[in-house]
Amino acid sequence: MSEKQLVEVLKANESFYHAIKTGDIGQMDNIWIKDANIKCVHPGWPMLYGWEAVRESWENIFSSGGPLDIELPDISAQILGDIAWVICIEKISYKVGNELQFVFAQSTNILKLDGSNWFLVLHHASPIPAPRREVTSNEILQ
Amino acid sequence: MSEKQLVEVLKANESFYHAIKTGDIGQMDNIWIKDANIKCVHPGWPMLYGWEAVRESWENIFSSGGPLDIELPDISAQILGDIAWVICIEKISYKVGNELQFVFAQSTNILKLDGSNWFLVLHHASPIPAPRREVTSNEILQ
Repeated sequence: MSEKQLVEVLKANESFYHAIKTGDIGQMDNIWIKDANIKCVHPGWPMLYGWEAVRESWENIFSSGGPLDIELPDISAQILGDIAWVICIEKISYKVGNELQFVFAQSTNILKLDGSNWFLVLHHASPIPAPRREVTSNEILQ
Repeated sequence: MSEKQLVEVLKANESFYHAIKTGDIGQMDNIWIKDANIKCVHPGWPMLYGWEAVRESWENIFSSGGPLDIELPDISAQILGDIAWVICIEKISYKVGNELQFVFAQSTNILKLDGSNWFLVLHHASPIPAPRREVTSNEILQ
């Protein structure tokens, strides 16, 4: 795994979370492989299969407001051949009235190299309690 | 992806769940890559990093009784090069007094081909509601 490849994988992963934060369905369109085999689990829910169902779920999330922000206090990435898997803790902020609230999720993102770009083939996020330690900068564990 | 490879991946995945069902730590030892990069999420908890932490978590689960049974009513698998990812719904049975209870989890298992065998590098299970449909036989979606 070259450092260049690792940077590219992390940029693709960042682009996915930027799409969520900004509610940008166009950017979401650009980050997924668009076939029937892709898979997505939103926290607490079963797997969605295929681009059609996955896109619809993001549209529903964005149309109901979506999160205010998502930070990734902990990231780890591995690459083997044309497949990468990125493991993140997601710190998701919501505004409830005037109050800012946080929930945490643990996610596994599988990306596939297609041509010279990395695309998501699987996103699996699950609710977790708040982590015991707060990490201030991303730590890349390989 | 050859059918032979798919069968081998599914057998490795089956061996993992057999180890859980029977509380067999020796079989669990045989199914994981044993390095600091492997990762495991039990339902509702953050990722555990590295073989030492992962093995300890299974020992704890087995010593507290573990599940009575795990069925996999829904399985899907994909392979690219030396990496495979298997997506399962887990139907987990527990005995509470004389009553049999079920919980469901959605899991993502990433396996790596090492020599001629497939080994787990990541297991991510998250709690989900009971699926709306009951699948009677495994469906392999590729």
